[in-house]
Amino acid sequence: MQDALTRLTAYWTDQGCLMVQPMNTEVGAGTLNPATLLRVLGPEPWRVVYAEPSVRPDDSRYGENPNRLQTHTQLQVILKPDPGNPQELYLGSLAALGIDVAAHDVRFVEDNWAAPAVGAWGLGWEVWLDGLEITQFTYFQQVGGVNLDPVSVEITYGIERIIMALQEKTHFKEIEYAPGVSYGEVFGQSEYEMSRYYLDDADIDANRRLLELYAAEAQRLIDIGLPVPAHSYVLKCSQTFNVLDSRGAVSTADRAAEFARMRRLAGDVARLWIDRRTELGLPLGTVDPLAPARPAATVQTGAEERALVFEIGTEELPPAEARSARDQVARLLTEGLAGTRLGHGDIRVFGTPRRIIAVVAAVAAREEDHVRTVKGPKAQQAYGADGEPTKALEGFVRGQGATLAEVETEDLGGVPHVVVRKQEAGRAAPAVLATVLAQVVTGLRAAKNMRWNDPKLAFSRPVRWLTALWGDDVVPVAVSTLAAGRRTRLLRTAEPPVADIASAETLLETLGVNGIVADPEDRRELIVIGAQDLVYPDGRIDVKGEAALIDQITDLVEQPLPLLGTFDESYLSLPDAVLTTVMRKHQRYLPVRDENGALLPLFVTVANGPVDVELVRAGNEGVLRARYEDAAFFYRADREKSLAEMKAHLDRLTFTDKLGSMADRARRIEALALSIAEHLGIGSPVLKRAAELVKFDLGSQLVTEMTSLAGVMARDYALHAGEDRPVAQAVYEAELPRNTGDALPASVPGAVLSLADRLDLVAGLAATVGLPTGSSDPFAVRRAVLGLLAVHRATPALAAFDLFDGLALAAQPVPVPEEVLAGSRDFLARRLEQLLVEEGQPVDRVRAVLPHAGRPALVDVLLAQLATAVTDPGFRAVAAAIQRARRIVPAGTVAGYDPAVLKEPAEVALHEAVASVTGFSDVTGFVTAVRPLVDPVGRFFDEVFVMDEDPVLRAARLGLLATVRDLGTGLLDWDHLRM
Amino acid sequence: MQDALTRLTAYWTDQGCLMVQPMNTEVGAGTLNPATLLRVLGPEPWRVVYAEPSVRPDDSRYGENPNRLQTHTQLQVILKPDPGNPQELYLGSLAALGIDVAAHDVRFVEDNWAAPAVGAWGLGWEVWLDGLEITQFTYFQQVGGVNLDPVSVEITYGIERIIMALQEKTHFKEIEYAPGVSYGEVFGQSEYEMSRYYLDDADIDANRRLLELYAAEAQRLIDIGLPVPAHSYVLKCSQTFNVLDSRGAVSTADRAAEFARMRRLAGDVARLWIDRRTELGLPLGTVDPLAPARPAATVQTGAEERALVFEIGTEELPPAEARSARDQVARLLTEGLAGTRLGHGDIRVFGTPRRIIAVVAAVAAREEDHVRTVKGPKAQQAYGADGEPTKALEGFVRGQGATLAEVETEDLGGVPHVVVRKQEAGRAAPAVLATVLAQVVTGLRAAKNMRWNDPKLAFSRPVRWLTALWGDDVVPVAVSTLAAGRRTRLLRTAEPPVADIASAETLLETLGVNGIVADPEDRRELIVIGAQDLVYPDGRIDVKGEAALIDQITDLVEQPLPLLGTFDESYLSLPDAVLTTVMRKHQRYLPVRDENGALLPLFVTVANGPVDVELVRAGNEGVLRARYEDAAFFYRADREKSLAEMKAHLDRLTFTDKLGSMADRARRIEALALSIAEHLGIGSPVLKRAAELVKFDLGSQLVTEMTSLAGVMARDYALHAGEDRPVAQAVYEAELPRNTGDALPASVPGAVLSLADRLDLVAGLAATVGLPTGSSDPFAVRRAVLGLLAVHRATPALAAFDLFDGLALAAQPVPVPEEVLAGSRDFLARRLEQLLVEEGQPVDRVRAVLPHAGRPALVDVLLAQLATAVTDPGFRAVAAAIQRARRIVPAGTVAGYDPAVLKEPAEVALHEAVASVTGFSDVTGFVTAVRPLVDPVGRFFDEVFVMDEDPVLRAARLGLLATVRDLGTGLLDWDHLRM
Repeated sequence: MQDALTRLTAYWTDQGCLMVQPMNTEVGAGTLNPATLLRVLGPEPWRVVYAEPSVRPDDSRYGENPNRLQTHTQLQVILKPDPGNPQELYLGSLAALGIDVAAHDVRFVEDNWAAPAVGAWGLGWEVWLDGLEITQFTYFQQVGGVNLDPVSVEITYGIERIIMALQEKTHFKEIEYAPGVSYGEVFGQSEYEMSRYYLDDADIDANRRLLELYAAEAQRLIDIGLPVPAHSYVLKCSQTFNVLDSRGAVSTADRAAEFARMRRLAGDVARLWIDRRTELGLPLGTVDPLAPARPAATVQTGAEERALVFEIGTEELPPAEARSARDQVARLLTEGLAGTRLGHGDIRVFGTPRRIIAVVAAVAAREEDHVRTVKGPKAQQAYGADGEPTKALEGFVRGQGATLAEVETEDLGGVPHVVVRKQEAGRAAPAVLATVLAQVVTGLRAAKNMRWNDPKLAFSRPVRWLTALWGDDVVPVAVSTLAAGRRTRLLRTAEPPVADIASAETLLETLGVNGIVADPEDRRELIVIGAQDLVYPDGRIDVKGEAALIDQITDLVEQPLPLLGTFDESYLSLPDAVLTTVMRKHQRYLPVRDENGALLPLFVTVANGPVDVELVRAGNEGVLRARYEDAAFFYRADREKSLAEMKAHLDRLTFTDKLGSMADRARRIEALALSIAEHLGIGSPVLKRAAELVKFDLGSQLVTEMTSLAGVMARDYALHAGEDRPVAQAVYEAELPRNTGDALPASVPGAVLSLADRLDLVAGLAATVGLPTGSSDPFAVRRAVLGLLAVHRATPALAAFDLFDGLALAAQPVPVPEEVLAGSRDFLARRLEQLLVEEGQPVDRVRAVLPHAGRPALVDVLLAQLATAVTDPGFRAVAAAIQRARRIVPAGTVAGYDPAVLKEPAEVALHEAVASVTGFSDVTGFVTAVRPLVDPVGRFFDEVFVMDEDPVLRAARLGLLATVRDLGTGLLDWDHLRM
Repeated sequence: MQDALTRLTAYWTDQGCLMVQPMNTEVGAGTLNPATLLRVLGPEPWRVVYAEPSVRPDDSRYGENPNRLQTHTQLQVILKPDPGNPQELYLGSLAALGIDVAAHDVRFVEDNWAAPAVGAWGLGWEVWLDGLEITQFTYFQQVGGVNLDPVSVEITYGIERIIMALQEKTHFKEIEYAPGVSYGEVFGQSEYEMSRYYLDDADIDANRRLLELYAAEAQRLIDIGLPVPAHSYVLKCSQTFNVLDSRGAVSTADRAAEFARMRRLAGDVARLWIDRRTELGLPLGTVDPLAPARPAATVQTGAEERALVFEIGTEELPPAEARSARDQVARLLTEGLAGTRLGHGDIRVFGTPRRIIAVVAAVAAREEDHVRTVKGPKAQQAYGADGEPTKALEGFVRGQGATLAEVETEDLGGVPHVVVRKQEAGRAAPAVLATVLAQVVTGLRAAKNMRWNDPKLAFSRPVRWLTALWGDDVVPVAVSTLAAGRRTRLLRTAEPPVADIASAETLLETLGVNGIVADPEDRRELIVIGAQDLVYPDGRIDVKGEAALIDQITDLVEQPLPLLGTFDESYLSLPDAVLTTVMRKHQRYLPVRDENGALLPLFVTVANGPVDVELVRAGNEGVLRARYEDAAFFYRADREKSLAEMKAHLDRLTFTDKLGSMADRARRIEALALSIAEHLGIGSPVLKRAAELVKFDLGSQLVTEMTSLAGVMARDYALHAGEDRPVAQAVYEAELPRNTGDALPASVPGAVLSLADRLDLVAGLAATVGLPTGSSDPFAVRRAVLGLLAVHRATPALAAFDLFDGLALAAQPVPVPEEVLAGSRDFLARRLEQLLVEEGQPVDRVRAVLPHAGRPALVDVLLAQLATAVTDPGFRAVAAAIQRARRIVPAGTVAGYDPAVLKEPAEVALHEAVASVTGFSDVTGFVTAVRPLVDPVGRFFDEVFVMDEDPVLRAARLGLLATVRDLGTGLLDWDHLRM
């Protein structure tokens, strides 16, 4: 291992990096060393390499976990500015380590890095070696909240992982650290003891006091203007915070406050550093931005229509961005060409993670010639009374380089103007296309955009080359520092890794010959068929169920090479969800099932390009084994504990400082669930027991590691502990739905618990931190509310339950004032409105039934009935009458009158009809109930003059109309319903 | 520079060292990293190399000082166990750095390392490269108070210094850190800012609180049994303490208490670490001790007497130890040979730092044959009454393997015994010598002894080889792991570095041919003559004045090569004492003066062996330049300040917590000096002004750096500031004497201040921490008392002043009880007694005058007079009479009588003589005064019977004798005077 550190250091110093020492205070990552965090700020160039023992108190495992250490070794490289080829340099470093990058499957997998505690973020990748994450590769965009210009490239190697892979070790302690000496022999004791400190023995009070002292010292030093020692104290804050966190002494609110303080301090340090460097005259000089590229010479060799091909070469785009980029290019190119007079055929766009390729058929050699009308003065002002040209006309003609003889008159906007018509020759295709294509590149945008060494472009990942050909000719596109040519890049492992393209028509062919499958559809098919072939005949790939994953894989490779891997059958004893979560989320592997849907000890991974299959398979199997070993370790440990022990651990998990621990929260959910059930008369022993257990699996190690398994593991552990299946199911269902579109509780106890969970969350947070506004929603209150709505709507047994009552029932350790409840009700109603509108319901109807938002199942019923009702002429007539009454009757008019005063037959008839209206509880009932009013109300408006001079009569008529006005009030909000 | 780190690391990993990372908390030295401090404990082997940024808050200089940094880079190597050839390995590392060790002057100069704060010490060297200290090389003996077994070798390179030398830079900022990037560019800002923090801006209160939190956490972790995190907190204590210290916030008492605490914590951590490693089963195994050596085969080829030569080869001995070792070998060998019957000639002992060589002329080939008398029973018991042999005799004869015929009778101790005489053949020389020489080696001891890889030997430095020849034959000496042979080692740079010696007679010749001058007298002469030649004709070496330095240099080299170096004349503007202190103390250079005694810009250094003269000269000149530049920097800065500013700085220097700051102490000295002067009526404006200024230079930077210049710089700065010369001189003299044999104040104001300074020190410390007992005397109270005595004895103007009164006058901020004063008086008297006895005064006379110890000048007078008096028969007679009277007269007898009762002429005569004794104030006066008594007292004892039966007469006679008894009481203590 020490040899690896030496080789990497030597490689990077050969690339002009300084070698410095690790930070002499504990840091969580090499990034925090001032050689990164401060040096990436400001305009000075900087290249550095150093090892950094990185302390993560939270990763303490007493040295027992094979893959997790409280201190691991990072090798950190900073290249400032981006040298333009950092990925290639990085691959060179792997080769220097002795890794055959052509034989292995080396991949750049999207990873957007952010360190909120120091106000820093960047975009980049995890680098995978045969499925193993060995490096973080990031283009630093911001530090301390300050935009970085120039951008730095950060490369962080996880040395222990790389060495475990290279030495084929399954436990970090077995790494050969130096000849004859193992890692465990050198660092084992320290791992154990520091784990003890971080997990069990650090004095919480002492560390809290240290944190305050450090923060105060950092602030003082900022105020004095000394960024270097201030930064050191910010790091001490960070480490001490992490110690407190690993000791379970940090509440969510503490965390937020502490992060805010550290972010503020880090921001101050960053700005101070820049100021100080500026005062010092930027001792290391400044980085010159790259000069704009000169476009290729314009050459046009043909006059026939030819294909256009345009390749935008990028570093590996995230799958979603690759798809989006293809769509954008299609749109931008279509619009761009539409703005020219160049004839062309179909536009098709392909692409891989590293390129977007537009192919346009039959692009004409020139724009068509064209007559352009240039507008001059109004005819009236162009000629004097004598018919002679005025000065204005003469000026116009001179300006256009025309003669008076060429002037015509044309009616423009109804007013005659003089005009000149100009014959314009169409421009040649290359020139026209150069402009259009440049706009395509500059128009590209991603959900999150970054900058690199290009002074003007911004995109999801760096654009590194452009290939543009119209027929045989290079289209002279130039965008910022990039000029298009005929050279494309092949797979990084190709020899040579570039190829020159003879003509537009041969680009895709050249790529294909070199293994690159440019069409995503083709790649998807290769993956699906390849995977199915691999598992045939015993296995099945759930192509439909895994569609999202397959889509993702499709955009992770240029040349898909599906590989079948196996894992030890013994791991099948782990829950299905554990196995597949690891495969899908962490590794992007396709699970393989038998015909009954049971998992087989197989997986399909898709390598990129012509790798050494056995090597890559073995590597991926090793990675999966390590991950499963990890999971199995936790699973075994968890199953050795009683449910009560796991639940007891919830005392140590803080929910928020004001709302207590997770144990407190579980107790509240339990009480609320029982209360709801009592309310509805649906209590049961199953519910009672499930409510006792709810959330216990948050105290398990596996769920601590893989939070998405909350509920799933509860069910598993509960069954293992001998709980009844319905109880176990209800505890699981309490967590449903976990996201939009997730399964919903199928059992009533499950549904009740699910509601109780979410009602508690909403009420508690509304009363303490407030409901979410804007895009920030750290506690996922929105998702909880959507869950409430979904569960209510899907569970008939709960239809009678009013969620608004539920909010009031959800007792909290803090007072929940009525205005908070009102706000929560409104928040819930707004979410329901938005949801229903998104489902296609007319907004007026939605709003009309929104008073019932507390019972969304009822809202659904009402909306369905309303949809029918609005086609019923009777309902429409009554509704129109009600609306008319609402307009006519002055505000404050009471719905009462003396029938004896009425005398006109029409009004008497209406009175009788109104009086005969029976009770109703929904829209259908209402339609039936008001049917007798249809005719009378029509007659009334036809025949009766409401505003009679006799005030008594007028009052009675208005009273009668007010009674009509109030029909259906409480059922429908007539304010909103538009008929 | 990074290249150097890489090369050294590679060199040592090739030697089997692990490479680890620096400590991730601030440390003052690589030693503190657990990879050293913990790993050297216990029996496990360990080899490691690492860089360590070493933080020394006290060395902060804002990056302005060319040679001093608050953080410098150490490269640390630990070899455990001692590999037996660590010096050779080290020299290999220098070669790996590209240093031509044969061309440069590489030297191992005594340096005894101790880190009391962690209970650690070791012996070893500074390694000098052309006079520049580049490495600390230590055999670790103890850590945390625990003896180390095996011993580790620690090699600590000061990287910046080495690089400055190799790159010929004069300021650390100019170092080329990496190609094209300077050290200053990379670290300059950090140096400035961290210096600001450590010197000016660290919050004292916050750091005090941090210190307490760290110490408490360390203690807690020790109690829990976790040495690794505990150690980390001990390091944090150490760093925080250093920060407080550099902020001037640590009093002497704080320092002692804090050191004690850290030492205790470090000791606990060390023991805990050993226990834990033992519990873990010593994961790295254990070190096998070396096996005992087998002696060479005994071969004796000659029968004639031949020379014996015995060389004990060591690593570089400290000069004092080299001298001592030669003396010991001479003594041990003389005694050892005396215990044999081997004839031999002269014994001579030579030696260099690396060897002690004994040469014995004409050692016989065999011991002489010898008749041994074996004592049997007493003759009386040997034969029965019948003259027949008894059983006892028969048993004796049988036991001796003799016959009755061989029995003789001999008078032993006056009693006749039977004896047997045995003829014994002398043993051969090699066998006899082997035993004697082995005892010489095991008998060697130093003032401070160390252990190395030898399981049994202990000495000042490791013994690495033995060469022992008698004539042509190897003497088969074997001591522990060493067996003598005929191979010796030459200079390390010789090729080959060893030689085989044909015969005892040729060892010195072989060494001489190879440049090694074994005889110290020869080396000294080469140095003296060589140096004088180099400076001739303009310069002079003060051979007599520099004798101690020359002696030291003589034992620093095996082959002296004096070299003349120069320095820039501009430095001559620095005070003479500054220049020579640097040359002598730091560099062991001989200063060169002109015929008037003024310094010339020259120095002589003495290289070891055949170096590249120009290279070594240039190197040494560079070192001296750097040191002078340092001094000049401080000197300039100091001279820009007023005396008042420097004095004001004394407020920031704590003397002790109970006795206040140095400013407080200076004020007390001022007041006491004026009070003494008033007492004696010798006040003066000079004294007044000097008293105001006293100790101001402790506030200067130069004295802070070179404390031995206190007083000298005061005079210089005072004159520069325009003070009168007598004032400046008195401020200087206030510091005199600085050590035994130093100059004493020549002026009365100087002497008064000197007394006041020392009286204050003694009184204050006696009243607070107590007077020194045993060998520990951290405040040098003994030296202060000796100074008091010396100044008093040398200053006639002070003769009337009683130091005991002075102690009472020395007001302190704490009460000084009478018993403390009494203790101080006694302490002073004991020192005077010891001093005078050492000066050769008879102890009885010294004690007789010791009641006057408060006035040591008077004591001198009295002793001188006493020396004359004791030769005076009259004095002797009177003294004898007084002593006789003291014996005769019962205790309690009052010296009074009724003369009328006396009747015998002899007693009347004595009465009259006694009555006529006049006053006297010293011994001479006493002799004169008692002269009339000489005859009467003689007569009295001859003629008068004191104990007459008449009680009245007897009382009168006893009263008369009591009057004689009391003569001189108060002047002399007759209890002690032996006549």
